[in-house]
Amino acid sequence: MTVSPRSTLITGIGQLVTNDPAAGPGILGTIDHAAIVIEGGTIAWIGPEREAPTADESLNVAGHAVLPGWVDSHTHLVFAGDRAAEFTARMAGEPYQAGGMRASVEATRATDDETLAQLVTDRIADMHAAGTTCIETKTGYGLTVPDEARGARIAAQAGVDEVTFLGAHVVPIEYDDDRGAYLDLVCGPMLDAVKGEARWIDVFCETGAFDEAESRRVLAAGRAAGLGLRVHGNQLGPGPGVRLAVELGAASVDHCTYLSDADIDALASGSTVATLLPATDLSTRQPPAPGRRLADAGAPIALATNCNPGTSYTASMPLVIALAVLQCGLTTAEAVHAATAGGARALRRDDVGVLKVGARADVQVIDAPSIDHIAYRVGGVGARAVWRAGRRVA
Amino acid sequence: MTVSPRSTLITGIGQLVTNDPAAGPGILGTIDHAAIVIEGGTIAWIGPEREAPTADESLNVAGHAVLPGWVDSHTHLVFAGDRAAEFTARMAGEPYQAGGMRASVEATRATDDETLAQLVTDRIADMHAAGTTCIETKTGYGLTVPDEARGARIAAQAGVDEVTFLGAHVVPIEYDDDRGAYLDLVCGPMLDAVKGEARWIDVFCETGAFDEAESRRVLAAGRAAGLGLRVHGNQLGPGPGVRLAVELGAASVDHCTYLSDADIDALASGSTVATLLPATDLSTRQPPAPGRRLADAGAPIALATNCNPGTSYTASMPLVIALAVLQCGLTTAEAVHAATAGGARALRRDDVGVLKVGARADVQVIDAPSIDHIAYRVGGVGARAVWRAGRRVA
Repeated sequence: MTVSPRSTLITGIGQLVTNDPAAGPGILGTIDHAAIVIEGGTIAWIGPEREAPTADESLNVAGHAVLPGWVDSHTHLVFAGDRAAEFTARMAGEPYQAGGMRASVEATRATDDETLAQLVTDRIADMHAAGTTCIETKTGYGLTVPDEARGARIAAQAGVDEVTFLGAHVVPIEYDDDRGAYLDLVCGPMLDAVKGEARWIDVFCETGAFDEAESRRVLAAGRAAGLGLRVHGNQLGPGPGVRLAVELGAASVDHCTYLSDADIDALASGSTVATLLPATDLSTRQPPAPGRRLADAGAPIALATNCNPGTSYTASMPLVIALAVLQCGLTTAEAVHAATAGGARALRRDDVGVLKVGARADVQVIDAPSIDHIAYRVGGVGARAVWRAGRRVA
Repeated sequence: MTVSPRSTLITGIGQLVTNDPAAGPGILGTIDHAAIVIEGGTIAWIGPEREAPTADESLNVAGHAVLPGWVDSHTHLVFAGDRAAEFTARMAGEPYQAGGMRASVEATRATDDETLAQLVTDRIADMHAAGTTCIETKTGYGLTVPDEARGARIAAQAGVDEVTFLGAHVVPIEYDDDRGAYLDLVCGPMLDAVKGEARWIDVFCETGAFDEAESRRVLAAGRAAGLGLRVHGNQLGPGPGVRLAVELGAASVDHCTYLSDADIDALASGSTVATLLPATDLSTRQPPAPGRRLADAGAPIALATNCNPGTSYTASMPLVIALAVLQCGLTTAEAVHAATAGGARALRRDDVGVLKVGARADVQVIDAPSIDHIAYRVGGVGARAVWRAGRRVA
C-alpha cells in the first residue's frame, strides 16, 4: 500500500497514546510498536509498525513517545505588560483579588494593534514549540466595545483555534459606580461586536468579579447570540459557579479549586467538563484543585494552563500535568488524557486530542520514552517534534 | 580606561544582582544602570554603566537581568537508567523508601565507564545551559570500592566543581545481613579510594538509611581523612540529622523538610547551612520545607535541585526558586540569594555565587528584566547567555 505524496510516516515510537478506546487498552488507547501516517492535514493511518505503508517521507523517533498535541482549553493570551510587581506583593502576603487584572486592562488598551498582535503571535509560537496544538484564548483585557472587538479579532487572526468573549472578566474601573451599565454593555453592544469572531462566552463568577445573577444574565445573552457557554468558577472559595455551569449545560467550568460534594456530584452527572488549572493554584498559593475526588466520582476533567499575566504566567502543559499528578492526585494517564482529550471535550471538539484516522494531524513526539516521565521530571519534558494540522511547527 | 583583550563588557542590564552588600542595597546588593566586565576567568570591573571601561567585545543585554550563575550545591548526577516505574507506583500510593535507590545502583554498576561519563557530561552541559555554573555532585550509586572510586573519578573528570563521597547513601542489598561490614567498608577502603577526588563526605541520616550512630561514625571517618562534612537529614520525618550536622559543624544539612523548633534554633545559631530541596518535596508529595520559619530565625539557607533519578529528576534551578517562593514562603530575593550565595556558602566557597571584582566569572543573563519573573513565571525563565569561569557555555 502506498499513500500519496506529502505524507509522513512516523516509526520507532516508544509509546503511542491515541485516546481512542478502540485502538488499545486504557483511557489512553495506548499501542505498542505502532506507526502513524500524517497526510495533508489529517491522520491517514495508524497501526502496527510492521504493517505500515510507505510514505513520502519517514521519521524514526528512536523510542520516544508520540501523543496528540496538547489541547490548552483555557488561556488569556491577548495582553500587554506584566504584573511582576503585583506577584511580588502577593508573595509578601497581600491577597489576590480579581481587580488586579485592571493593570493588564490598562496596559493592553495602551498598546497599538500591531504590537499586541505580535505578542499574541509570539505566545502561540512558543506554545506550538512546547507541544500545544489547539489553543483557546479569551478576550477580557479590553473591556470597551472597540478593545474587546480588537482582542477577538487579533486572537482569531493570530490563529488560535477557539476565541472566547470574556467581557465579563471584571468590571472596569470607569464603571465602578454603575455595574448595571457595564453589564448592559457586555450583553449588548460588546457582545454584538465580538460575536463574529468568538465561538464562546465566559464569565468570571467569583466574589469580587460577577455574582450568580450577573453571571446568569451574561451567559443567557451569550446563548441568545449563538455562543457556547464557559464559566470561571470556584477559584477563590466555594461559590455558585459550578452549579450554574452544570445547570446551564456549559461546556466547561474552569478552576474548580473549592468544590463541595454537591458540586462534584453535579459535575459527575452533567455534561460540563471540570477544567483544572493547577499552575494557577500553585501561583496563587491556593490549595490544589481536588482532581482525585473528581476522577473518583467519574467527572470529566480537562487540564489547561490559564496562561495569563496575573495568576499563571506559564504556557507549559507538561508543568500543568506534573502539578495535576503531584498535587491534585491524578494518575499520569488521567492527567495526559485531561490535557488532550479532556481539553477537546471542554471545547466540544472531536477532531483534536485524539489520534485516529481522519482526526486533525496534531501530533507531538515528546522528549521521553513514555508519558510517565512528564510528572517524574517535574514538567521538564519538552517536545522534539510537533505537527499542527499536518504542518510541522516545531 | 582600557582593559586587556579577551575582555567582555556587558551593558544594558535591567537589574544586576551582585550578592555583594558593599555594592548595593538588600541581601542581593542590586545595582541599577550597572555594567560588568569579564576578563579571563574573573570579574574585572563592576560599576555604573556611564563609567564603564572599553573592552575587547561588548554585549548589550537589552534590559535583561544579570545574576551570578546558579550554585547547585546538591546533585546526584552519576547514575544510569531511570525510575519512572517506581515514580508511577509512588503516585499510585506506594510510599517512598530510601531503598528505592537500589535500582539506580544496579543500573549504574551495569553501565560501562564511557557511557556513564557521557551521561554525566550531558547533564552538566544541560545545567550550564540553564544558568548553573557551579555544581556539586555525589557518588552513591556504586556502593562498592571500585564503583564508588569510578563515580568520583567520572564526576571530577566531567568537570563538576565539588565531588562528595556518599558511600553511605544506602546499605547495598548484598550487605543486608551485615550492615556493620558495609560501614567498615565505607569508613575504610572505600573512603581511601575516593578521597583523592572528593572534597566532601555525606551520609543519608534517615529511617531506612543510616541511624545517628552510624552517621556519626561515617562523618568522623571522613573528617579524619580530611574531608568536609555534609548530611542528608530530616527528609522523611523528624530525625537527628540536623542536630548532628550542626553539632559537628557540617557545611550543610540538606532536605530539612521536617524541622522542630530546636532544629531551627540550632541552624540559626550554628555555622551549618540549611539546604532546601523543594523539587524533592514536591516530587515525593511531602510538605514543603519550612523556608519561612528558617528565614525568620535567621538561619543560612541554600537551595539546590537534588537532581537524581529517584525523587527529583530535574536540574532546573528556576523551578526550585519558584517552588521555594510559592511553597516554602521565601521572598524571591531570599530564594535567589539562596540559589547563588547560599549555595556557595553551603560549599564554603567565596569565589562563586557573587559578582565582584576578583570573583570567578560565573555570570548569567536571564530571560526576564528582573528576578521577580522567576517565580512569577513558575520557573519558566531560562538563561539567554551564561559564562562559567569566563568561558561562554550558553
